[in-house]
Amino acid sequence: MPMVATASSRIHAPHATSVEKQRCSRGNASMQSRDAAEERESMIERIGPFLYRAGLHGATMDEIAREAGTYKMSIYRAIGTKNDVWMTYARTLCEQRNREMTALLLRSDQRPERLVMNYFLQQRELVLNDAILGDPILKLSTEAAGRFEELHQALCRQRDLHLARFEQIGGSIAPSDGINLGIELHMMWQVLVSCGRSRAAIQRDSEHVIRMVRRTLDACLRRPELQGA
Amino acid sequence: MPMVATASSRIHAPHATSVEKQRCSRGNASMQSRDAAEERESMIERIGPFLYRAGLHGATMDEIAREAGTYKMSIYRAIGTKNDVWMTYARTLCEQRNREMTALLLRSDQRPERLVMNYFLQQRELVLNDAILGDPILKLSTEAAGRFEELHQALCRQRDLHLARFEQIGGSIAPSDGINLGIELHMMWQVLVSCGRSRAAIQRDSEHVIRMVRRTLDACLRRPELQGA
Repeated sequence: MPMVATASSRIHAPHATSVEKQRCSRGNASMQSRDAAEERESMIERIGPFLYRAGLHGATMDEIAREAGTYKMSIYRAIGTKNDVWMTYARTLCEQRNREMTALLLRSDQRPERLVMNYFLQQRELVLNDAILGDPILKLSTEAAGRFEELHQALCRQRDLHLARFEQIGGSIAPSDGINLGIELHMMWQVLVSCGRSRAAIQRDSEHVIRMVRRTLDACLRRPELQGA
Repeated sequence: MPMVATASSRIHAPHATSVEKQRCSRGNASMQSRDAAEERESMIERIGPFLYRAGLHGATMDEIAREAGTYKMSIYRAIGTKNDVWMTYARTLCEQRNREMTALLLRSDQRPERLVMNYFLQQRELVLNDAILGDPILKLSTEAAGRFEELHQALCRQRDLHLARFEQIGGSIAPSDGINLGIELHMMWQVLVSCGRSRAAIQRDSEHVIRMVRRTLDACLRRPELQGA
């Protein structure tokens, strides 16, 4: 996956001197690399909530470290530069999203329309639970556009991938006949999790989106060619 | 309108000393205030495109002045602090949006469905013409959420007002009977102008939204209670 900044992180990681490196056997190197990946993961887990709140331009490395209750040097060691931090954070968000969608798809041979409904209800719970900032991937791609080309492109690929999953699920509910159910569901999802709204707007939009998803799925299931299936 | 930072701008405007102020007749004061408003407007017109590209966190006052080809002190004089600059920029965006929507409403007694279609076609032209950053008000409210409470609230009020206009127009096309046409059109508009997408996604989404708007309006016009109208 092109957005993983592993090589770059290693260049910036000052904890392994060249002498230490020469001492390492192949087995040790592999173990160290696994340890480093785990450390990176745990670090992103700790600083993720602050990165989400502060936004791409709103956080210095000092602030990130303070908010995460760690040292700036620990972040440099585990992840790398500030750019690496954002790329790693974005990669973690994307992997998480992909896991969720894969889990949804794996179960979608049984009543896919029910699984879609459950996904929307679960996403509604997430946004109602204090998400005036909106979906992290939509938020980050908005902030990155026009200023952070590599990050923006990686997030755009993820948005396309997410849409492709919706189309796959949509296709398993109703084959395309002029209306692309997957794209329409994806549009409703975008509105459900969109960024920077007031709490009242989130409440209002989420009720409306849920009604709209229900109506759209019902309409698909009422179509004659599907009733016999 | 609560988001106008006039008082605050005046406090920060160092060109009128207290002695000069005492000399002013009421007529002069009114003329000066009109001149100041014009200067503010022309300044925001010049720096607006940079504010849009740079984003809420991405621009220092030095950069804003350099990009706008003016002096930092001229911006302080005409508008005030950096916070005032963003509030004034947001207010200008909102006024512009309100003018556009009022013009739309004024003409919407004649074939409102055609006017809605024309609005979407015009908005599509705007996004296709290099708008990977998306709609300025959606972009700015995403950036402001959770960090700039006053600015965020003002932009949320504007988003609600925009929705209210859509509901008004929707109501003039088809009275609500379970489906709120205005809210649904507003959702489609949000997808059409959403922020931080790739050029390919903008192209794809805009085609899809236009098809969806057309289909939705057609469905409304085909309903029995409207055919006799």
